[in-house]
Amino acid sequence: MQKLILIKVGGQIVEEPDTLRQLLSDFSKIEGRKVLIHGGGRAATRIAAKLGIESQMVNGRRVTDAKMLEVVTMVYGGLVNKQIVAGLQALGVNALGLTGADLNYMRSEKRPVKEVDYGFVGDVKEVDAEILADLISKNVVPVLAPLTHDRNGNLLNTNADTIAAEAAKALAQYFDVTLVFCFEKKGVLRNPDDEESVIPEITETLFNQYVADGTIAGGMIPKLENAFDAIRAGVKEVIITKADEIGKNSGTVVK
Amino acid sequence: MQKLILIKVGGQIVEEPDTLRQLLSDFSKIEGRKVLIHGGGRAATRIAAKLGIESQMVNGRRVTDAKMLEVVTMVYGGLVNKQIVAGLQALGVNALGLTGADLNYMRSEKRPVKEVDYGFVGDVKEVDAEILADLISKNVVPVLAPLTHDRNGNLLNTNADTIAAEAAKALAQYFDVTLVFCFEKKGVLRNPDDEESVIPEITETLFNQYVADGTIAGGMIPKLENAFDAIRAGVKEVIITKADEIGKNSGTVVK
Repeated sequence: MQKLILIKVGGQIVEEPDTLRQLLSDFSKIEGRKVLIHGGGRAATRIAAKLGIESQMVNGRRVTDAKMLEVVTMVYGGLVNKQIVAGLQALGVNALGLTGADLNYMRSEKRPVKEVDYGFVGDVKEVDAEILADLISKNVVPVLAPLTHDRNGNLLNTNADTIAAEAAKALAQYFDVTLVFCFEKKGVLRNPDDEESVIPEITETLFNQYVADGTIAGGMIPKLENAFDAIRAGVKEVIITKADEIGKNSGTVVK
Repeated sequence: MQKLILIKVGGQIVEEPDTLRQLLSDFSKIEGRKVLIHGGGRAATRIAAKLGIESQMVNGRRVTDAKMLEVVTMVYGGLVNKQIVAGLQALGVNALGLTGADLNYMRSEKRPVKEVDYGFVGDVKEVDAEILADLISKNVVPVLAPLTHDRNGNLLNTNADTIAAEAAKALAQYFDVTLVFCFEKKGVLRNPDDEESVIPEITETLFNQYVADGTIAGGMIPKLENAFDAIRAGVKEVIITKADEIGKNSGTVVK
């Protein structure tokens, strides 16, 4: 099977012209088949504020009412996605911007209301990567926005990490998949205060050990659990690194 | 060659939930290969106003400064396009929303400043319909937003009628193309006050005759000139009709 690399970058990177330019340049230099997944939360918050709509977050997740759904549809599906696509085309990358509704590639269901009503937020139920895989094999580079649909005509706001993991799992049927999560650190750190203390490789056994001894804690635990989940579903490796390190073979490799 | 129908609908139809629902239902019932091209000017004006940005029109065309470009990127590429895509998917149509930057299918150049500086408005220079034709032959239904790109990283606002005509001409290499322009009348009228006086068929000879005797005047002249231009470029027929008449074999056929 051919290799495929999926790179997920957060909102911060893609919303600043300078960091976006650097990211697109680095991304364009990666050889072979590739996919980019982006966030856009800060831009959504900024545009929503200008429209007089308040952003409400619960447990770090955006509550998406009907008005906020319009905003994220505009910002994620339009502004951020199309600026990335146009930027990549200028670098000779044949980008194609997609939400889950496009080609019906990712179907979700509105999250059931429990303690929190997140509103129009989707939990992924089904990924159809066949046409996507075919396009990728023709050198098309999908650029995935954090939006899915329920196949009943509704778009749903969906976490970009989830989009990345679900797309990676589905594409693992067709390619040898590497999934890269970019965040603000160079990798999983042994010492949170030392940016250079990146753990080069983590297996599930080692992960359990690190959690037990407190080396790995907080938000890194669900991030790594997601990574192992992707590995179990057929993704070959997951790399946790910093956006400005992509293509440099650095970061933490989860196997 | 297989038949392909491209249908262009204006902003008014796609911006009202009721008329949009009817349009998508009618469109979903059209058999065979198809493409939808949409406007969105009213929604852009509405969102721009909420953001405190004034819409400036010259000769019926939008002046697009940097801020307005952000708005149309959000509204045409995101809000309107993705709502149509999700709506079509709910009706079993495998829609794919595209700007000219996606798949680099339509490249334009910023319009040179003459009497009027239209700002970030693109004149179409090159259409690459190969991947589009391949997707269409796999039952994918492209939904084209009125945005192109200059391949230097800039998106450009582009008239939806132009997008429709240029896409139709390029796709005429691969399909027997019918291009349908929907506007507010049932067709080209012999008597502008009589909605039922639709001229069923117009050839170029007849057109020149109608212009000479004053039957056809005003904004219908450039619309028909564009239609003949498409015919000369290989489009099989152009139909001018009303959105709620699509699929009914009515309107004016330009041959």
